[in-house]
Amino acid sequence: MAERLDKHDRSCYFGPMVTKGEETRERILDRAMAMAAVVGLEGLSIGDLARETGMSKSGLFAHFASKEELQLKIIETARERFIRDVFLPTLRATRGESRVRALFERWLAWERGRVGGCPFIEASYELDDRPGPVRDSLALVQREWVDNLAKAVQLAKDEGHFGADLDPYQFAYEMYGIFLAYHLYHRLLDAEDAADRARAAFDRLITASR
Amino acid sequence: MAERLDKHDRSCYFGPMVTKGEETRERILDRAMAMAAVVGLEGLSIGDLARETGMSKSGLFAHFASKEELQLKIIETARERFIRDVFLPTLRATRGESRVRALFERWLAWERGRVGGCPFIEASYELDDRPGPVRDSLALVQREWVDNLAKAVQLAKDEGHFGADLDPYQFAYEMYGIFLAYHLYHRLLDAEDAADRARAAFDRLITASR
Repeated sequence: MAERLDKHDRSCYFGPMVTKGEETRERILDRAMAMAAVVGLEGLSIGDLARETGMSKSGLFAHFASKEELQLKIIETARERFIRDVFLPTLRATRGESRVRALFERWLAWERGRVGGCPFIEASYELDDRPGPVRDSLALVQREWVDNLAKAVQLAKDEGHFGADLDPYQFAYEMYGIFLAYHLYHRLLDAEDAADRARAAFDRLITASR
Repeated sequence: MAERLDKHDRSCYFGPMVTKGEETRERILDRAMAMAAVVGLEGLSIGDLARETGMSKSGLFAHFASKEELQLKIIETARERFIRDVFLPTLRATRGESRVRALFERWLAWERGRVGGCPFIEASYELDDRPGPVRDSLALVQREWVDNLAKAVQLAKDEGHFGADLDPYQFAYEMYGIFLAYHLYHRLLDAEDAADRARAAFDRLITASR
Protein backbone atom coordinates (compact mmCIF):
# COMPACT_ATOMS: atom_id res chain seq x y z
CA MET A 1 0.00 0.00 0.00
CA ALA A 2 2.83 2.38 0.94
CA GLU A 3 4.42 1.68 -2.40
CA ARG A 4 1.18 2.33 -4.26
CA LEU A 5 0.69 5.65 -2.47
CA ASP A 6 4.28 6.55 -3.15
CA LYS A 7 3.81 5.78 -6.82
CA HIS A 8 0.62 7.80 -6.85
CA ASP A 9 2.31 10.79 -5.25
CA ARG A 10 5.11 10.68 -7.73
CA SER A 11 2.71 10.53 -10.65
CA CYS A 12 0.88 13.57 -9.29
CA TYR A 13 3.93 15.73 -8.79
CA PHE A 14 6.31 14.62 -11.47
CA GLY A 15 4.08 13.82 -14.41
CA PRO A 16 3.67 10.35 -15.88
CA MET A 17 3.67 7.37 -13.51
CA VAL A 18 7.18 6.05 -12.97
CA THR A 19 7.28 2.43 -11.91
CA LYS A 20 9.90 1.08 -9.56
CA GLY A 21 11.31 -0.99 -12.44
CA GLU A 22 11.70 2.09 -14.59
CA GLU A 23 13.37 3.93 -11.75
CA THR A 24 15.89 1.15 -11.25
CA ARG A 25 16.51 1.09 -14.98
CA GLU A 26 17.18 4.84 -14.97
CA ARG A 27 19.59 4.49 -12.07
CA ILE A 28 21.49 1.72 -13.87
CA LEU A 29 21.62 3.78 -17.06
CA ASP A 30 23.01 6.81 -15.21
CA ARG A 31 25.83 4.72 -13.84
CA ALA A 32 26.40 2.92 -17.15
CA MET A 33 26.58 6.22 -19.03
CA ALA A 34 29.22 7.60 -16.66
CA MET A 35 31.25 4.38 -16.93
CA ALA A 36 30.97 4.28 -20.74
CA ALA A 37 32.33 7.83 -20.96
CA VAL A 38 35.51 6.55 -19.32
CA VAL A 39 35.99 2.99 -20.59
CA GLY A 40 33.99 3.24 -23.82
CA LEU A 41 30.83 1.44 -24.90
CA GLU A 42 32.78 -1.67 -25.83
CA GLY A 43 34.87 -1.56 -22.67
CA LEU A 44 31.72 -1.60 -20.55
CA SER A 45 31.03 -5.03 -19.07
CA ILE A 46 27.86 -6.29 -17.39
CA GLY A 47 30.13 -7.61 -14.62
CA ASP A 48 31.66 -4.20 -13.88
CA LEU A 49 28.25 -2.56 -14.04
CA ALA A 50 26.89 -5.10 -11.56
CA ARG A 51 29.70 -4.28 -9.13
CA GLU A 52 29.15 -0.52 -9.55
CA THR A 53 25.40 -0.67 -9.01
CA GLY A 54 25.49 -3.35 -6.31
CA MET A 55 23.19 -5.57 -8.38
CA SER A 56 23.60 -9.15 -9.50
CA LYS A 57 24.42 -9.91 -13.12
CA SER A 58 21.12 -11.75 -13.51
CA GLY A 59 19.35 -8.72 -12.01
CA LEU A 60 20.92 -6.57 -14.68
CA PHE A 61 19.99 -8.98 -17.44
CA ALA A 62 16.37 -8.64 -16.34
CA HIS A 63 16.62 -4.99 -17.44
CA PHE A 64 18.90 -5.36 -20.45
CA ALA A 65 18.77 -8.63 -22.34
CA SER A 66 22.23 -8.15 -23.86
CA LYS A 67 25.25 -5.88 -23.84
CA GLU A 68 24.10 -4.50 -27.19
CA GLU A 69 20.71 -3.54 -25.74
CA LEU A 70 22.51 -1.80 -22.88
CA GLN A 71 24.73 0.10 -25.35
CA LEU A 72 21.70 1.18 -27.39
CA LYS A 73 19.90 2.34 -24.25
CA ILE A 74 22.97 4.33 -23.16
CA ILE A 75 22.98 6.18 -26.48
CA GLU A 76 19.23 6.80 -26.23
CA THR A 77 19.55 8.07 -22.65
CA ALA A 78 22.53 10.28 -23.48
CA ARG A 79 20.52 11.71 -26.40
CA GLU A 80 17.58 12.54 -24.10
CA ARG A 81 19.88 14.27 -21.60
CA PHE A 82 21.62 16.15 -24.39
CA ILE A 83 18.32 17.44 -25.77
CA ARG A 84 17.21 18.40 -22.25
CA ASP A 85 20.48 20.06 -21.14
CA VAL A 86 21.89 21.49 -24.36
CA PHE A 87 19.27 21.84 -27.07
CA LEU A 88 15.99 22.77 -25.37
CA PRO A 89 17.35 25.60 -23.17
CA THR A 90 18.72 27.35 -26.28
CA LEU A 91 15.19 27.75 -27.62
CA ARG A 92 14.79 30.47 -24.98
CA ALA A 93 17.55 32.50 -26.68
CA THR A 94 16.53 34.87 -29.48
CA ARG A 95 16.60 33.05 -32.78
CA GLY A 96 19.56 33.98 -34.94
CA GLU A 97 23.16 34.56 -33.91
CA SER A 98 22.29 34.58 -30.17
CA ARG A 99 20.84 31.09 -30.38
CA VAL A 100 23.82 29.79 -32.36
CA ARG A 101 26.10 31.18 -29.65
CA ALA A 102 23.93 29.66 -26.93
CA LEU A 103 24.19 26.25 -28.62
CA PHE A 104 27.96 26.51 -28.59
CA GLU A 105 28.20 27.57 -24.93
CA ARG A 106 25.75 24.87 -23.79
CA TRP A 107 27.72 22.29 -25.74
CA LEU A 108 30.98 23.31 -24.00
CA ALA A 109 29.20 23.18 -20.62
CA TRP A 110 27.89 19.70 -21.41
CA GLU A 111 31.45 18.49 -21.96
CA ARG A 112 32.73 20.11 -18.77
CA GLY A 113 29.85 18.89 -16.63
CA ARG A 114 30.27 15.18 -17.25
CA VAL A 115 32.67 12.56 -15.94
CA GLY A 116 34.66 11.50 -18.99
CA GLY A 117 33.44 14.40 -21.11
CA CYS A 118 30.91 14.02 -23.91
CA PRO A 119 29.74 10.39 -24.09
CA PHE A 120 29.07 10.70 -27.84
CA ILE A 121 32.60 11.71 -28.72
CA GLU A 122 34.52 8.77 -27.32
CA ALA A 123 31.85 6.41 -28.68
CA SER A 124 32.04 7.99 -32.14
CA TYR A 125 35.74 7.36 -32.58
CA GLU A 126 35.47 4.00 -30.84
CA LEU A 127 32.66 2.60 -32.98
CA ASP A 128 33.34 4.18 -36.38
CA ASP A 129 34.87 0.96 -37.70
CA ARG A 130 32.48 -1.49 -36.04
CA PRO A 131 29.38 -1.96 -38.21
CA GLY A 132 26.17 -2.83 -36.39
CA PRO A 133 23.08 -1.35 -34.77
CA VAL A 134 25.04 0.53 -32.07
CA ARG A 135 27.18 2.36 -34.63
CA ASP A 136 24.04 3.06 -36.73
CA SER A 137 22.20 4.50 -33.76
CA LEU A 138 25.16 6.69 -32.82
CA ALA A 139 25.54 7.98 -36.38
CA LEU A 140 21.82 8.82 -36.42
CA VAL A 141 22.11 10.86 -33.22
CA GLN A 142 25.17 12.68 -34.55
CA ARG A 143 23.43 13.49 -37.86
CA GLU A 144 20.41 14.78 -35.94
CA TRP A 145 22.69 17.12 -33.99
CA VAL A 146 24.40 18.34 -37.16
CA ASP A 147 20.92 18.97 -38.65
CA ASN A 148 19.89 20.95 -35.57
CA LEU A 149 23.04 23.08 -35.73
CA ALA A 150 22.48 23.74 -39.45
CA LYS A 151 18.83 24.67 -38.79
CA ALA A 152 19.86 27.24 -36.16
CA VAL A 153 22.35 28.69 -38.62
CA GLN A 154 19.65 28.83 -41.32
CA LEU A 155 17.44 30.81 -38.90
CA ALA A 156 20.32 33.23 -38.35
CA LYS A 157 20.52 33.64 -42.14
CA ASP A 158 16.74 34.22 -42.30
CA GLU A 159 17.10 36.88 -39.61
CA GLY A 160 19.79 38.58 -41.65
CA HIS A 161 22.48 37.95 -39.01
CA PHE A 162 24.53 35.75 -41.32
CA GLY A 163 25.30 36.23 -45.01
CA ALA A 164 22.89 34.87 -47.62
CA ASP A 165 25.59 32.76 -49.28
CA LEU A 166 26.63 30.96 -46.08
CA ASP A 167 26.31 27.17 -46.24
CA PRO A 168 24.73 26.16 -42.89
CA TYR A 169 26.21 22.66 -43.10
CA GLN A 170 29.69 24.03 -43.66
CA PHE A 171 29.20 26.20 -40.56
CA ALA A 172 28.01 23.15 -38.59
CA TYR A 173 31.07 21.17 -39.76
CA GLU A 174 33.46 23.87 -38.59
CA MET A 175 31.59 24.38 -35.32
CA TYR A 176 31.86 20.63 -34.71
CA GLY A 177 35.60 20.73 -35.39
CA ILE A 178 36.09 23.52 -32.85
CA PHE A 179 34.22 21.43 -30.26
CA LEU A 180 36.25 18.30 -31.01
CA ALA A 181 39.54 20.18 -30.68
CA TYR A 182 38.28 21.64 -27.39
CA HIS A 183 37.50 18.15 -26.10
CA LEU A 184 40.96 16.90 -27.08
CA TYR A 185 42.87 19.90 -25.68
CA HIS A 186 40.85 19.91 -22.48
CA ARG A 187 40.75 16.19 -21.76
CA LEU A 188 44.01 14.80 -23.13
CA LEU A 189 46.38 17.75 -23.38
CA ASP A 190 45.20 19.32 -20.09
CA ALA A 191 45.38 22.69 -21.85
CA GLU A 192 44.16 25.39 -19.48
CA ASP A 193 43.39 27.69 -22.40
CA ALA A 194 41.22 25.09 -24.22
CA ALA A 195 37.99 27.06 -23.71
CA ASP A 196 39.66 30.37 -24.65
CA ARG A 197 40.97 28.83 -27.88
CA ALA A 198 37.55 27.33 -28.62
CA ARG A 199 35.81 30.68 -28.13
CA ALA A 200 38.40 32.55 -30.21
CA ALA A 201 37.91 30.07 -33.05
CA PHE A 202 34.13 30.26 -32.76
CA ASP A 203 34.16 34.08 -32.73
CA ARG A 204 36.21 34.02 -35.92
CA LEU A 205 33.70 31.64 -37.50
CA ILE A 206 30.77 33.85 -36.46
CA THR A 207 32.47 37.02 -37.72
CA ALA A 208 33.32 35.43 -41.06
CA SER A 209 29.68 34.29 -41.43
CA ARG A 210 28.03 37.68 -41.03
CA MET B 1 74.73 -19.59 -43.38
CA ALA B 2 71.92 -18.67 -45.75
CA GLU B 3 70.36 -16.66 -42.99
CA ARG B 4 73.60 -14.86 -42.20
CA LEU B 5 74.06 -13.95 -45.86
CA ASP B 6 70.49 -12.79 -46.03
CA LYS B 7 71.02 -10.58 -42.99
CA HIS B 8 74.24 -9.28 -44.45
CA ASP B 9 72.53 -8.42 -47.75
CA ARG B 10 69.79 -6.61 -45.96
CA SER B 11 72.21 -4.58 -43.90
CA CYS B 12 74.02 -3.59 -47.11
CA TYR B 13 70.96 -2.49 -48.99
CA PHE B 14 68.65 -1.20 -46.30
CA GLY B 15 70.96 0.40 -43.81
CA PRO B 16 71.46 -0.83 -40.28
CA MET B 17 71.45 -4.57 -39.58
CA VAL B 18 67.95 -5.78 -38.77
CA THR B 19 67.90 -8.92 -36.65
CA LYS B 20 65.28 -11.59 -37.07
CA GLY B 21 63.90 -10.72 -33.63
CA GLU B 22 63.51 -7.08 -34.58
CA GLU B 23 61.82 -8.07 -37.81
CA THR B 24 59.30 -10.24 -35.98
CA ARG B 25 58.70 -7.44 -33.52
CA GLU B 26 58.04 -5.01 -36.39
CA ARG B 27 55.61 -7.44 -37.99
CA ILE B 28 53.72 -7.88 -34.70
CA LEU B 29 53.59 -4.10 -34.20
CA ASP B 30 52.21 -3.56 -37.72
CA ARG B 31 49.40 -5.98 -36.99
CA ALA B 32 48.81 -4.62 -33.47
CA MET B 33 48.64 -1.04 -34.78
CA ALA B 34 46.00 -1.95 -37.36
CA MET B 35 43.98 -3.84 -34.72
CA ALA B 36 44.25 -1.01 -32.18
CA ALA B 37 42.89 1.47 -34.76
CA VAL B 38 39.71 -0.62 -34.83
CA VAL B 39 39.26 -1.97 -31.28
CA GLY B 40 41.27 0.68 -29.42
CA LEU B 41 44.42 0.34 -27.34
CA GLU B 42 42.47 -0.98 -24.36
CA GLY B 43 40.37 -3.32 -26.50
CA LEU B 44 43.52 -4.95 -27.84
CA SER B 45 44.22 -8.30 -26.18
CA ILE B 46 47.38 -10.39 -26.31
CA GLY B 47 45.12 -13.38 -27.10
CA ASP B 48 43.57 -11.73 -30.18
CA LEU B 49 46.99 -10.55 -31.33
CA ALA B 50 48.35 -14.09 -30.97
CA ARG B 51 45.54 -15.41 -33.19
CA GLU B 52 46.07 -12.67 -35.78
CA THR B 53 49.83 -13.15 -36.02
CA GLY B 54 49.74 -16.95 -35.73
CA MET B 55 52.03 -16.79 -32.70
CA SER B 56 51.65 -18.26 -29.23
CA LYS B 57 50.83 -16.00 -26.31
CA SER B 58 54.14 -16.89 -24.68
CA GLY B 59 55.88 -16.11 -27.96
CA LEU B 60 54.33 -12.64 -27.86
CA PHE B 61 55.25 -12.10 -24.23
CA ALA B 62 58.89 -12.72 -25.24
CA HIS B 63 58.63 -9.51 -27.30
CA PHE B 64 56.35 -7.47 -25.05
CA ALA B 65 56.49 -8.14 -21.34
CA SER B 66 53.02 -6.65 -20.72
CA LYS B 67 50.01 -5.22 -22.47
CA GLU B 68 51.15 -1.78 -21.35
CA GLU B 69 54.53 -2.25 -23.00
CA LEU B 70 52.74 -3.30 -26.19
CA GLN B 71 50.52 -0.19 -26.03
CA LEU B 72 53.54 2.06 -25.53
CA LYS B 73 55.34 0.42 -28.45
CA ILE B 74 52.28 0.88 -30.67
CA ILE B 75 52.26 4.61 -29.93
CA GLU B 76 56.02 4.81 -30.56
CA THR B 77 55.69 2.92 -33.84
CA ALA B 78 52.70 4.98 -34.99
CA ARG B 79 54.71 8.13 -34.21
CA GLU B 80 57.66 6.92 -36.31
CA ARG B 81 55.35 6.13 -39.25
CA PHE B 82 53.60 9.47 -38.87
CA ILE B 83 56.90 11.36 -38.97
CA ARG B 84 58.02 9.30 -41.98
CA ASP B 85 54.75 9.54 -43.97
CA VAL B 86 53.33 12.92 -42.96
CA PHE B 87 55.96 15.21 -41.49
CA LEU B 88 59.26 14.52 -43.30
CA PRO B 89 57.86 14.69 -46.87
CA THR B 90 56.50 18.18 -46.20
CA LEU B 91 60.04 19.47 -45.63
CA ARG B 92 60.42 19.23 -49.42
CA ALA B 93 57.65 21.80 -49.86
CA THR B 94 58.68 25.48 -49.85
CA ARG B 95 58.60 26.83 -46.31
CA GLY B 96 55.63 29.05 -45.61
CA GLU B 97 52.03 28.64 -46.74
CA SER B 98 52.93 25.81 -49.16
CA ARG B 99 54.38 23.72 -46.38
CA VAL B 100 51.41 24.37 -44.10
CA ARG B 101 49.11 23.22 -46.93
CA ALA B 102 51.29 20.15 -47.51
CA LEU B 103 51.05 19.24 -43.81
CA PHE B 104 47.26 19.37 -44.04
CA GLU B 105 47.02 17.27 -47.21
CA ARG B 106 49.49 14.67 -45.90
CA TRP B 107 47.50 14.47 -42.67
CA LEU B 108 44.25 13.79 -44.57
CA ALA B 109 46.03 11.15 -46.67
CA TRP B 110 47.35 9.50 -43.50
CA GLU B 111 43.78 9.11 -42.22
CA ARG B 112 42.50 7.73 -45.53
CA GLY B 113 45.39 5.32 -46.01
CA ARG B 114 44.97 3.40 -42.77
CA VAL B 115 42.58 0.71 -41.62
CA GLY B 116 40.57 2.34 -38.83
CA GLY B 117 41.79 5.84 -39.69
CA CYS B 118 44.32 7.70 -37.57
CA PRO B 119 45.51 5.51 -34.68
CA PHE B 120 46.17 8.56 -32.50
CA ILE B 121 42.62 9.88 -32.69
CA GLU B 122 40.71 6.92 -31.32
CA ALA B 123 43.39 6.42 -28.68
CA SER B 124 43.20 10.08 -27.65
CA TYR B 125 39.49 10.01 -26.85
CA GLU B 126 39.80 6.50 -25.43
CA LEU B 127 42.59 7.24 -22.99
CA ASP B 128 41.92 10.83 -21.98
CA ASP B 129 40.36 9.72 -18.67
CA ARG B 130 42.76 6.90 -17.88
CA PRO B 131 45.84 8.27 -16.13
CA GLY B 132 49.08 6.34 -16.63
CA PRO B 133 52.17 6.05 -18.81
CA VAL B 134 50.20 5.22 -21.98
CA ARG B 135 48.07 8.35 -21.73
CA ASP B 136 51.20 10.41 -20.92
CA SER B 137 53.03 9.06 -23.93
CA LEU B 138 50.08 9.77 -26.20
CA ALA B 139 49.69 13.32 -24.88
CA LEU B 140 53.42 13.88 -25.49
CA VAL B 141 53.13 12.77 -29.13
CA GLN B 142 50.07 14.97 -29.65
CA ARG B 143 51.79 18.01 -28.13
CA GLU B 144 54.82 17.38 -30.33
CA TRP B 145 52.53 17.42 -33.39
CA VAL B 146 50.82 20.62 -32.27
CA ASP B 147 54.30 22.17 -31.79
CA ASN B 148 55.33 21.11 -35.29
CA LEU B 149 52.18 22.61 -36.80
CA ALA B 150 52.73 25.86 -34.91
CA LYS B 151 56.38 25.96 -36.05
CA ALA B 152 55.36 25.63 -39.69
CA VAL B 153 52.86 28.46 -39.20
CA GLN B 154 55.57 30.60 -37.57
CA LEU B 155 57.77 30.04 -40.65
CA ALA B 156 54.87 31.20 -42.85
CA LYS B 157 54.70 34.34 -40.71
CA ASP B 158 58.47 34.83 -41.05
CA GLU B 159 58.13 34.51 -44.83
CA GLY B 160 55.40 37.18 -44.77
CA HIS B 161 52.73 34.75 -46.02
CA PHE B 162 50.68 35.07 -42.84
CA GLY B 163 49.90 38.19 -40.84
CA ALA B 164 52.31 39.31 -38.11
CA ASP B 165 49.60 39.21 -35.43
CA LEU B 166 48.58 35.59 -36.12
CA ASP B 167 48.90 33.25 -33.11
CA PRO B 168 50.50 30.06 -34.52
CA TYR B 169 49.03 27.94 -31.71
CA GLN B 170 45.53 29.25 -32.40
CA PHE B 171 46.01 28.29 -36.05
CA ALA B 172 47.21 24.82 -34.99
CA TYR B 173 44.15 24.43 -32.74
CA GLU B 174 41.75 25.28 -35.55
CA MET B 175 43.63 23.12 -38.04
CA TYR B 176 43.37 20.23 -35.59
CA GLY B 177 39.63 20.80 -35.23
CA ILE B 178 39.14 20.67 -39.00
CA PHE B 179 41.01 17.36 -39.09
CA LEU B 180 38.97 15.90 -36.20
CA ALA B 181 35.68 16.86 -37.86
CA TYR B 182 36.95 15.32 -41.10
CA HIS B 183 37.74 12.06 -39.26
CA LEU B 184 34.26 11.99 -37.68
CA TYR B 185 32.37 12.86 -40.88
CA HIS B 186 34.39 10.45 -42.96
CA ARG B 187 34.49 7.48 -40.59
CA LEU B 188 31.23 7.63 -38.65
CA LEU B 189 28.84 9.72 -40.74
CA ASP B 190 30.03 8.22 -44.05
CA ALA B 191 29.85 11.75 -45.48
CA GLU B 192 31.07 11.69 -49.08
CA ASP B 193 31.85 15.40 -48.94
CA ALA B 194 34.00 15.11 -45.79
CA ALA B 195 37.24 16.00 -47.62
CA ASP B 196 35.56 18.87 -49.52
CA ARG B 197 34.26 20.32 -46.27
CA ALA B 198 37.68 19.92 -44.63
CA ARG B 199 39.42 21.71 -47.52
CA ALA B 200 36.81 24.51 -47.59
CA ALA B 201 37.31 25.08 -43.85
CA PHE B 202 41.09 24.98 -44.20
CA ASP B 203 41.06 27.43 -47.12
CA ARG B 204 39.00 29.81 -45.01
CA LEU B 205 41.52 29.49 -42.18
CA ILE B 206 44.44 30.13 -44.55
CA THR B 207 42.75 33.13 -46.14
CA ALA B 208 41.89 34.64 -42.75
CA SER B 209 45.53 34.20 -41.65
CA ARG B 210 47.18 36.09 -44.52
